[in-house]
Amino acid sequence: MTLRYDTISFLSDYGLSDEFVGVVKSVIRSIAPEVAVVDITHDVAPHDVRAGGLALARSAQYLMPGVVLAVVDPGVGGDRRAVAVEVGDGTSVLVGPDNGLLAPAVAMVGGASRAVELTAEQYHLVSAGPTFAGRDVFAPAAAHLCLGAGLDELGTPMPVEALTPAMVPVSRTDGEKIHAEVLWIDRFGNLQLNLGPGEIGPLGDALRLTASDIGRSTRRVSSYSELGSGELGVLVDSYGLVAIAVNRGSAAQDLSCLEGDSITLEPGGPAPAIPVQLEPKPSNDQMS
Amino acid sequence: MTLRYDTISFLSDYGLSDEFVGVVKSVIRSIAPEVAVVDITHDVAPHDVRAGGLALARSAQYLMPGVVLAVVDPGVGGDRRAVAVEVGDGTSVLVGPDNGLLAPAVAMVGGASRAVELTAEQYHLVSAGPTFAGRDVFAPAAAHLCLGAGLDELGTPMPVEALTPAMVPVSRTDGEKIHAEVLWIDRFGNLQLNLGPGEIGPLGDALRLTASDIGRSTRRVSSYSELGSGELGVLVDSYGLVAIAVNRGSAAQDLSCLEGDSITLEPGGPAPAIPVQLEPKPSNDQMS
Amino acid sequence: MTLRYDTISFLSDYGLSDEFVGVVKSVIRSIAPEVAVVDITHDVAPHDVRAGGLALARSAQYLMPGVVLAVVDPGVGGDRRAVAVEVGDGTSVLVGPDNGLLAPAVAMVGGASRAVELTAEQYHLVSAGPTFAGRDVFAPAAAHLCLGAGLDELGTPMPVEALTPAMVPVSRTDGEKIHAEVLWIDRFGNLQLNLGPGEIGPLGDALRLTASDIGRSTRRVSSYSELGSGELGVLVDSYGLVAIAVNRGSAAQDLSCLEGDSITLEPGGPAPAIPVQLEPKPSNDQMS
Repeated sequence: MTLRYDTISFLSDYGLSDEFVGVVKSVIRSIAPEVAVVDITHDVAPHDVRAGGLALARSAQYLMPGVVLAVVDPGVGGDRRAVAVEVGDGTSVLVGPDNGLLAPAVAMVGGASRAVELTAEQYHLVSAGPTFAGRDVFAPAAAHLCLGAGLDELGTPMPVEALTPAMVPVSRTDGEKIHAEVLWIDRFGNLQLNLGPGEIGPLGDALRLTASDIGRSTRRVSSYSELGSGELGVLVDSYGLVAIAVNRGSAAQDLSCLEGDSITLEPGGPAPAIPVQLEPKPSNDQMS
Repeated sequence: MTLRYDTISFLSDYGLSDEFVGVVKSVIRSIAPEVAVVDITHDVAPHDVRAGGLALARSAQYLMPGVVLAVVDPGVGGDRRAVAVEVGDGTSVLVGPDNGLLAPAVAMVGGASRAVELTAEQYHLVSAGPTFAGRDVFAPAAAHLCLGAGLDELGTPMPVEALTPAMVPVSRTDGEKIHAEVLWIDRFGNLQLNLGPGEIGPLGDALRLTASDIGRSTRRVSSYSELGSGELGVLVDSYGLVAIAVNRGSAAQDLSCLEGDSITLEPGGPAPAIPVQLEPKPSNDQMS
Repeated sequence: MTLRYDTISFLSDYGLSDEFVGVVKSVIRSIAPEVAVVDITHDVAPHDVRAGGLALARSAQYLMPGVVLAVVDPGVGGDRRAVAVEVGDGTSVLVGPDNGLLAPAVAMVGGASRAVELTAEQYHLVSAGPTFAGRDVFAPAAAHLCLGAGLDELGTPMPVEALTPAMVPVSRTDGEKIHAEVLWIDRFGNLQLNLGPGEIGPLGDALRLTASDIGRSTRRVSSYSELGSGELGVLVDSYGLVAIAVNRGSAAQDLSCLEGDSITLEPGGPAPAIPVQLEPKPSNDQMS
């Protein structure tokens, strides 16, 4: 049997403690046994559409051509649409809720070429209760796309302009200050910001960073290992975005930061060349 | 090579922090390299046979025909039997400890047709110490079943009536009250009860719920999205059982509930049609 | 297409919350779509090279012949080498950082036959920022080895003697006392020590155990089930090493132990054969 796509890349907020991920994969395998499922992550925070969308966008350029199944779906059972979005003129199709989750990845790979609302019920599983969308709608759609079902067999075409756009925060410049936001905190406590390297270039290498009203002097480096053990620095990360990191430590912990927090960067001036005098200066008061 | 079964669905309480799951899969692949392993979950609480059995039962109807490998095994090394249980006249075989773990899933798919105790040591791995049953007994049995080994090659036949039955709590009706139990709390904090929709139908749509001695007025809805954000409701879940849910929140957290806790449901009377008077009523005391 | 190796066994400290593991697998599948990846574990504590190396060594004898990809890499971006290490005259190749992570597993399977530093940049992915070694260097190397690339195509040969050795703690005997160390605490709270069964044999079956300055009387058993529920015992585990366990409980919790902690074992003398008298003995004081 020839498959249209042989890989489904799968991201969700289902966690791994329940059987949700296993059931979705079993449904896929029941319909399309030759298809491989590659897990991206299932530990997106429950209902955190933004975090899921950013993880998908970071992964996008590395994923296998094929189907991307993404489910972070706080509006399940409501009136949000279930959609399949074609990109690259059919190189890949993203399947999931139309709530902004897919949008950053779609934009990353050049935008949508076609979209369809998944209304064709002959491709849905019948549930014993209300629909479990990942299991009953999205997984069967992903599997049937691999088997060769056309996008328009799965439901009603919709204009790609009608898809919910991504809400990605933009940075703001205020004189010499840049106001940025923490997009992502990874397992190692690195803080990825919504800044490209070009934006911080003009600030120079000595920087002042403010997070949660606490200011810190820091510096720009090109890799973790240029920092002393435990030292905080600013670098471009392996995704090409500006990040705050602590060598062999956690920047998130040192700065008490959460995803979505604000970070301000500004020029920090050169480090003092002469050690700071901590003794009291001679005082005129002694004369009186 | 033709396989008897090409899929092993795998559930355990091994967690993912240690290498146990990886080693079991490596053993399977060493014996039967063409077989796919689909993980159901490995985060069953350590030694929680009931939770593992319920997760397996919820998954059962969606699993691929083939071998189901399930290991939650507090009695390892003792005298509990290691078994393989055939269902559907050979459509699938469940492999695991005979401690009640397999029983709810076996019942769900129509009962056992044959069973065998896994006593044939030529199918076991030799351990450097005491037997690690998942690695040394269950994984090889599952893999050899896929390759075509007959059930009775793996050990001693036993009557299916001798298998340890499931201990599933039953609900109890007391006048208009139904006393139920929390079977499962999922990642989103939804509480699945041991009740079918037919049992709560007579109570009507306005309900009173008591959990941990705290009473709450609530109502029956047909999907999460009928509830206001943060509102608690009673619905039939996607497995066909009654559940308590909070839209975009956690019912478990709101009600301080754990798996196994008691929940009472009773008719709640109609919601007051007239807004409650909060002003003091005219009092006769003013006349004195 | 004929593969040189058809399996990559993958261990890391990437966790499963971010998309790192999914991206590495996607890179592998993009290069070598027919290769299966078997996850050993990705929950090694961040940067804990010793714990990762021990998990790999425990798994080694069960892994499929093929490529082992292991990444716990606190020195990423620094001057630690990226290497591929051949064992068993080409039966398997281990790919990862040269920081001691691979060494215990290499020793376990008979030592390295050849090694190469992964310097051939035509086999690396180009990063948008600094190198993400797992994604950009190690995954492509592992995939190309499966496709048939020779070890020396991937970089510069290096003498196997120059590989960073493992740092495994050794036990110490002091009269009748053995000073051991906790190598590993598993999900169930069992404490694996750096002791073989031969080392504790001379101590006899009644033992005295000291951990964190707290002494406990205990005994040697041959399986968990010989212990009463909640009882602490000493046994040989399924890897052939001495372990401290509590039947249906957690030895780590009972003894407040962490990985790396010291444990002392010594002969405990026979258990008292006569029940202890708890009544007051007749006292001469009554005579006065």
